[in-house]
Amino acid sequence: MFEDGRSFLFKIQEGKLQTHNGVINLSDITGKSYGSSCQTHTGKRFYIMKPRLVDEIYRMKRQTQIVYPKDIGYILLMLDVHEGMKIIDAGVGSGAMCAALARAVGETGKIYAYEKREDFKKLAEENLTKWGLISRVEIKLRDISQGFDETADAIFLDVPDPWNYIRQCYEALVGSGNLAIVSPTTNQVQLVLEEISKFPFVGVEVWESLFRQYKTVPSRLRPFDRMVAHTTYMIFARKVVNDWRD
Amino acid sequence: MFEDGRSFLFKIQEGKLQTHNGVINLSDITGKSYGSSCQTHTGKRFYIMKPRLVDEIYRMKRQTQIVYPKDIGYILLMLDVHEGMKIIDAGVGSGAMCAALARAVGETGKIYAYEKREDFKKLAEENLTKWGLISRVEIKLRDISQGFDETADAIFLDVPDPWNYIRQCYEALVGSGNLAIVSPTTNQVQLVLEEISKFPFVGVEVWESLFRQYKTVPSRLRPFDRMVAHTTYMIFARKVVNDWRD
Amino acid sequence: MFEDGRSFLFKIQEGKLQTHNGVINLSDITGKSYGSSCQTHTGKRFYIMKPRLVDEIYRMKRQTQIVYPKDIGYILLMLDVHEGMKIIDAGVGSGAMCAALARAVGETGKIYAYEKREDFKKLAEENLTKWGLISRVEIKLRDISQGFDETADAIFLDVPDPWNYIRQCYEALVGSGNLAIVSPTTNQVQLVLEEISKFPFVGVEVWESLFRQYKTVPSRLRPFDRMVAHTTYMIFARKVVNDWRD
Amino acid sequence: MFEDGRSFLFKIQEGKLQTHNGVINLSDITGKSYGSSCQTHTGKRFYIMKPRLVDEIYRMKRQTQIVYPKDIGYILLMLDVHEGMKIIDAGVGSGAMCAALARAVGETGKIYAYEKREDFKKLAEENLTKWGLISRVEIKLRDISQGFDETADAIFLDVPDPWNYIRQCYEALVGSGNLAIVSPTTNQVQLVLEEISKFPFVGVEVWESLFRQYKTVPSRLRPFDRMVAHTTYMIFARKVVNDWRD
Repeated sequence: MFEDGRSFLFKIQEGKLQTHNGVINLSDITGKSYGSSCQTHTGKRFYIMKPRLVDEIYRMKRQTQIVYPKDIGYILLMLDVHEGMKIIDAGVGSGAMCAALARAVGETGKIYAYEKREDFKKLAEENLTKWGLISRVEIKLRDISQGFDETADAIFLDVPDPWNYIRQCYEALVGSGNLAIVSPTTNQVQLVLEEISKFPFVGVEVWESLFRQYKTVPSRLRPFDRMVAHTTYMIFARKVVNDWRD
Repeated sequence: MFEDGRSFLFKIQEGKLQTHNGVINLSDITGKSYGSSCQTHTGKRFYIMKPRLVDEIYRMKRQTQIVYPKDIGYILLMLDVHEGMKIIDAGVGSGAMCAALARAVGETGKIYAYEKREDFKKLAEENLTKWGLISRVEIKLRDISQGFDETADAIFLDVPDPWNYIRQCYEALVGSGNLAIVSPTTNQVQLVLEEISKFPFVGVEVWESLFRQYKTVPSRLRPFDRMVAHTTYMIFARKVVNDWRD
Repeated sequence: MFEDGRSFLFKIQEGKLQTHNGVINLSDITGKSYGSSCQTHTGKRFYIMKPRLVDEIYRMKRQTQIVYPKDIGYILLMLDVHEGMKIIDAGVGSGAMCAALARAVGETGKIYAYEKREDFKKLAEENLTKWGLISRVEIKLRDISQGFDETADAIFLDVPDPWNYIRQCYEALVGSGNLAIVSPTTNQVQLVLEEISKFPFVGVEVWESLFRQYKTVPSRLRPFDRMVAHTTYMIFARKVVNDWRD
Repeated sequence: MFEDGRSFLFKIQEGKLQTHNGVINLSDITGKSYGSSCQTHTGKRFYIMKPRLVDEIYRMKRQTQIVYPKDIGYILLMLDVHEGMKIIDAGVGSGAMCAALARAVGETGKIYAYEKREDFKKLAEENLTKWGLISRVEIKLRDISQGFDETADAIFLDVPDPWNYIRQCYEALVGSGNLAIVSPTTNQVQLVLEEISKFPFVGVEVWESLFRQYKTVPSRLRPFDRMVAHTTYMIFARKVVNDWRD
């Protein structure tokens, strides 16, 4: 990362990295600890930073719309993701949300990911492997209309027609288990809410988030001129069981 | 939780729970699985739900302003919190953020929490004990002006005058380690940014989040009338080491 | 208005005004100029302020959802309201938007207001009379499904089912005339957009506004804790005439 | 305006207009009424629209940061601008806000505009002349530190250091008169609030606005991906006179 904030994500190996601030000899970096710096051939200081998951997500290869960090954090909390949980992720897409889930369930947890497109599955596997999380994830190449193979503590549903899979989600969730659905249009949200109302779910909530960044000059503190206006609506629901009649 | 969304947080034991929908015999709940329901004495259905951390946070005993779920998720991502990390949390307050950190670092991680007020320390310990996370947290009753006892992979700083402890944070962080600071006023943000600029930090960012909730009637989808307008500004920075001169 | 920001709207006449800060003798106010002050019987200073239209709107008698100042200003601009214009306002409701339109078209302009409920018409007339604007407004007690009696430079449509009156609006507008519609739900917006697409309109835009207020303590500048999350969506369109075939 | 929403602002005269959709013969437009259309040489339909003030503002020649329509409407309401008012506008900049003020005060009102830079004054005069509003505006080439020549019903203050002119504004305002100040940074707002607190002002309010636009496909209703995050903070205050001592 340069002081101007531009950064590059790469594996340290032999060779050179061409940047807008000059060439970096990767051998100059080998053996250096995180946070230390080297010089480009033009004399600019370049810092060696440990990539965070958010950095990886912003820079990963993708073929799909991804879930953004501004929403990922909230979904993790609303799904109450923690060590040892079993979670279904459908469809996996490029694997951004899957990675966040896999990291949060720890070594003892498991993500069952469903994806019907082979190219997406391959890409997600590639990304998850690079991030060292593939051992916690099982990706299945399959349509989810036939339901899921597992019961799950939580389900994350990110498909174009989520209203068609509410029954399948309900059936796969454990009692009190949490469901999260992301959809970018209000029409989709309406259809999902209608379908959810047919099943015993409680705690149904719909949210959207706006994150605004500020310029960091202390004597002129103010927001940036432009921001992300919309990524997705987030729909949450919790399964209950009507085991007796009113 | 009732169908009207109102919920109650309690440990299952002998006795009765008085609610706006009638009395619940807690013995009716014993042995029931999560997601199932019982009846109040007026015949209303009451669901037994596994409390999520977000539910605990909203209902916990507190004596301080807490960090809200809308911000907690993003801070966890920006600090890149994951299994096995060592994190400093100063000051711990009522323990909401501490709990989120403790849960995310897993069994192999550790939170070093600092708090100078004895009543807050006691309250945080109580809350963390109730949530089963106290074993991952060491709370020290101490002012942080003398610095921290540990080096940390990340630091969360939530004190009224964070600009006075930037040096201490810098010194305690490992190279490339992440710092997050929360402050509710623009004046505080200005002072923090000024102080941060005196140390080798990169990736300095200031954010705020707005979360808007929607009513869940599918035929009349629209946001609620009112929302939270402000909780805190979030300031992030990453430590680098200037180990050679330009 | 007191220094604590609480204010009272009244006509100056004989009598006393009971406030949370004590009694004001209205005879103490008579003859005083705007901006000057009198004393309550408890010695509190009370300022005599000229009420603005926004003050009147917030305090007026109403039986309906009103258009809020945060949206009124933008609608006036998007409808390009100025002196001498002829504008249709349907339905008039409590008359808030009607007053803003009437004021902006000046002495030479005219508002043709339609309202099908007699109680609303009466209330709007009462409000507009109090504000001295009734001479610029003609309120008709009538359903608009049969169309409007006039052609108009601009139309403001605020009814529960606006999609049913797009044809009527199109027919009443002059060429290049502006249409503004307010609706609180996404479902209504979808129906309106669908209907608008069947007529030769250009410049179709949908907007919503969020206004956030800040506390005014200079050493602790920060937004208030809560804000209005939603009032209405605003839909704009401009009439064109397809006077030749492609 | 084309159906793709792109538009061109011009005076109708002899000649040709080159567009991304082909050439328009301006003689084809002469004599046509607003809302009607002509054909480009490639056969695309082009509509002749009456420009609104908002269209002019977005397209005008400018050398300064302008006040945006999303804020202009609210400022007009908070200043309670209406027919016959006398308003001070300092500094006038490119003249966007001045035009909005001049239009709202009507034939019987007057804007006293102050500008210390000759090039800005010239540009504002040019713009106001083009919009037919110059007769209502008197622009003075002058620094405002010496105060204003007139008393005014309202003042709009848009200079880099507004805190230096609060006394001048207070002195020029009539009792109960309204002041509006725009400033883009939190630091400026703090300084303004501090200075305002030294004078008898009531109703001091600080606001910011966020306007979000939606895509107009009815079957996929959702906000655009990006939006304006910040233009300015708006500070409002009302002059009172402390004509007796507590």
